[in-house]
Amino acid sequence: MTARRFPVDGERLRRDIERNAQFGATATDEGQGRTVLPGTEPNRRARENLVNRMVAADLDVTVDAVGNVAGTWRPDGCETDAAPVAVGSHLDSVPNGGIFDGPLGVYAGLEAVRAMQDAGVTPMRPIQVVAFTGEEGTRFADGVLGSSVAAGLLAVEEALALTDDSEVRGTADGRTGGGDEVTLREALDGIGFHGEGRLDASEWHAWLELHVEQGERLEDLGAPAGVVTSITGTARLRGTIEGEAAHSGTTAMAGRTDALAAASEFVLALEDAAREAAADTDGTAVGTVGELDVDPGAVNVVPGEVAFSADIRDVDGAVIDRLVDRAESTLADLETERGVETSLDRPYDVPPVDMAATCRTALHDAGDALDIETADLHSGAGHDSMQVGRVTDAGLLFAPSRDGHSHNPLEWTDWADCAAATAVLTTALASLAESTTD
Amino acid sequence: MTARRFPVDGERLRRDIERNAQFGATATDEGQGRTVLPGTEPNRRARENLVNRMVAADLDVTVDAVGNVAGTWRPDGCETDAAPVAVGSHLDSVPNGGIFDGPLGVYAGLEAVRAMQDAGVTPMRPIQVVAFTGEEGTRFADGVLGSSVAAGLLAVEEALALTDDSEVRGTADGRTGGGDEVTLREALDGIGFHGEGRLDASEWHAWLELHVEQGERLEDLGAPAGVVTSITGTARLRGTIEGEAAHSGTTAMAGRTDALAAASEFVLALEDAAREAAADTDGTAVGTVGELDVDPGAVNVVPGEVAFSADIRDVDGAVIDRLVDRAESTLADLETERGVETSLDRPYDVPPVDMAATCRTALHDAGDALDIETADLHSGAGHDSMQVGRVTDAGLLFAPSRDGHSHNPLEWTDWADCAAATAVLTTALASLAESTTD
Repeated sequence: MTARRFPVDGERLRRDIERNAQFGATATDEGQGRTVLPGTEPNRRARENLVNRMVAADLDVTVDAVGNVAGTWRPDGCETDAAPVAVGSHLDSVPNGGIFDGPLGVYAGLEAVRAMQDAGVTPMRPIQVVAFTGEEGTRFADGVLGSSVAAGLLAVEEALALTDDSEVRGTADGRTGGGDEVTLREALDGIGFHGEGRLDASEWHAWLELHVEQGERLEDLGAPAGVVTSITGTARLRGTIEGEAAHSGTTAMAGRTDALAAASEFVLALEDAAREAAADTDGTAVGTVGELDVDPGAVNVVPGEVAFSADIRDVDGAVIDRLVDRAESTLADLETERGVETSLDRPYDVPPVDMAATCRTALHDAGDALDIETADLHSGAGHDSMQVGRVTDAGLLFAPSRDGHSHNPLEWTDWADCAAATAVLTTALASLAESTTD
Repeated sequence: MTARRFPVDGERLRRDIERNAQFGATATDEGQGRTVLPGTEPNRRARENLVNRMVAADLDVTVDAVGNVAGTWRPDGCETDAAPVAVGSHLDSVPNGGIFDGPLGVYAGLEAVRAMQDAGVTPMRPIQVVAFTGEEGTRFADGVLGSSVAAGLLAVEEALALTDDSEVRGTADGRTGGGDEVTLREALDGIGFHGEGRLDASEWHAWLELHVEQGERLEDLGAPAGVVTSITGTARLRGTIEGEAAHSGTTAMAGRTDALAAASEFVLALEDAAREAAADTDGTAVGTVGELDVDPGAVNVVPGEVAFSADIRDVDGAVIDRLVDRAESTLADLETERGVETSLDRPYDVPPVDMAATCRTALHDAGDALDIETADLHSGAGHDSMQVGRVTDAGLLFAPSRDGHSHNPLEWTDWADCAAATAVLTTALASLAESTTD
């Protein structure tokens, strides 16, 4: 494979992203925000705009049963039956999210194709530009919805039956209003994006995704692009600690079973354990109690019950398991020491996944050829590449996020960085599509 | 003063309390609940029933501007101009509260008068049976509303302008629905209990209140009645801890400013400090974090801000101040050690008050004369007697609460204990009313 330079048009990419940013745009004091939940009107407009842009680039557009959009480029001279190389990301956002998270990867994929077309290059393999449905998990399930279906990890019918219910949303990245009990099928029908069949990622020769980093490591390193080595696994826990609600004035300290005091020990124990694990793992391990609800939650009542969630991640599944064990043993200790009753579930569990060496090499080689530094780093956030990577070779490229801002209107990636990363993506994509020998 | 026995009618008292329990009765699986917020329809019915029962006992009923109800017994032969002895409590409840908390003291006061009447006794002083407005603080202000006005600690006009607003209720014993912005004046007008003038507790020779203990100490001691030595003071704190909201996956442990982890240290530090203080104070000191709200409160976001309240009590104001100092110094330490920003207010501060020796002695003497054990104990909860005790001699008698249940339908005091405590109250009341020499 040879790595070559393509005439990536940063301004064309910028116009695409700025136009996409209008759909679901939110009023903000600083930055640019958008709310594009799957199956909503802003999502319909964003999808239709993408389809138009794909058609304008001579892509053959299909929509599968769960709304995954794929635009395939099969130029004359390519081996039309060869396994395609796919590239893309997602169009949906968290509530009041940023304008790059997702759309950058979709439109960079499209720009890559256009740059190859402009260069008069004919890849050996077809290239597919993909926008997956529901990556963020703010409506219908916990996220990476469309890519889970494409990877065969979630059945089409199961996905279509998911409802927009608050329970699910409560566990997700952002929150919207009360549940309206709409199924994914109904929502996709409503916006005209309930297609047929299933986009099958296992049929791809390889997959590349460009995404914003959502952290500060590239900025700290001064690198314009990062090649992801592994995507962390995530275990999510939901637990309760039951003590005894009691009058805060008439109940002596010695006679209390304070659920919040016990929960406070849990929060600190998980933080301690995660810090220790991070010291052992080059900082990849994290553990967070992000939700904690106190019942009854009155100024003069000793808390009777606390419900909490915990989010535990690492690139090593064994480290995740050890942290979950620590959470369990901490609760057991609290039962003994404080007389509380506890429960702990692990309702969400995604194992870590390594990115493919072929894809990482293609991305690094592209950076070298273009004289763009490409740092190695892991991803602490889940991405569609995580699911795709379970069934085919997948590569994930990061562009820098200014000050690490993510999931809010302050999210920003300089246009020059967008263009540089897209150039790396294009060159790597061309390399992977060039060879039909696998 | 001589302590004598009166024909207290436990069945008559029980009928009064059971009838009162019908107003605002709630559906419960266990026990008996009622919701009687001040100025509501159930409160109107409870008040009108009381007035009827007072009139039936030949009391002269007045209602003051803030709805305090007083029924005065001035039998022929008493010194009508002498400072009266007052007795009573309150009729309002927390949402889904118990049937004894408040009404026991009001109807025990009425039963005391009836028992004296039945015995043909003529006290030297008039006796006033009182039901204060808004003791629980679940609507309009933080509680002890009517007694604060009667003690001159809150101006009538200020009290009447208080609104049923959720902010205030959020700091109180129980919570109801969204605020409806009704003033106390409007609410009292609406139920026909916005009277004239001000019941003035400073004009009373003495005051007695019978109330349920809301704790387990009498039960533990096997004593049917408790004479309160002091009522604890209460400081309420409201604070915030600001960290930095961040993605729980992409933000390394070392790069976090987790507001909930900091708040957890605060909760445990206050618990520690209160436990130490309790060890130094015979168990009277308490400190509680009862409310804690996490923002944004999502499974995969490092908490950015926590708002909390703390409730600190002791019979010694200096101990309260020391605990508040500990709360402040803990937050200062957290600012240094964790980089959070914190705030702390002390919006509610009621100093402790000792009950009057004259009243305590009268209650103990009554117990001795009737062969009913009367244990000394402090009150960890605020009561109307706390405010009255700032302007005249006040005594507070406790009846046992089964298993300490309070502010819920499981609250229970055996009818025999109600009758025994009322007998003690009656004898003490007669003693205090007998002498006009002060």
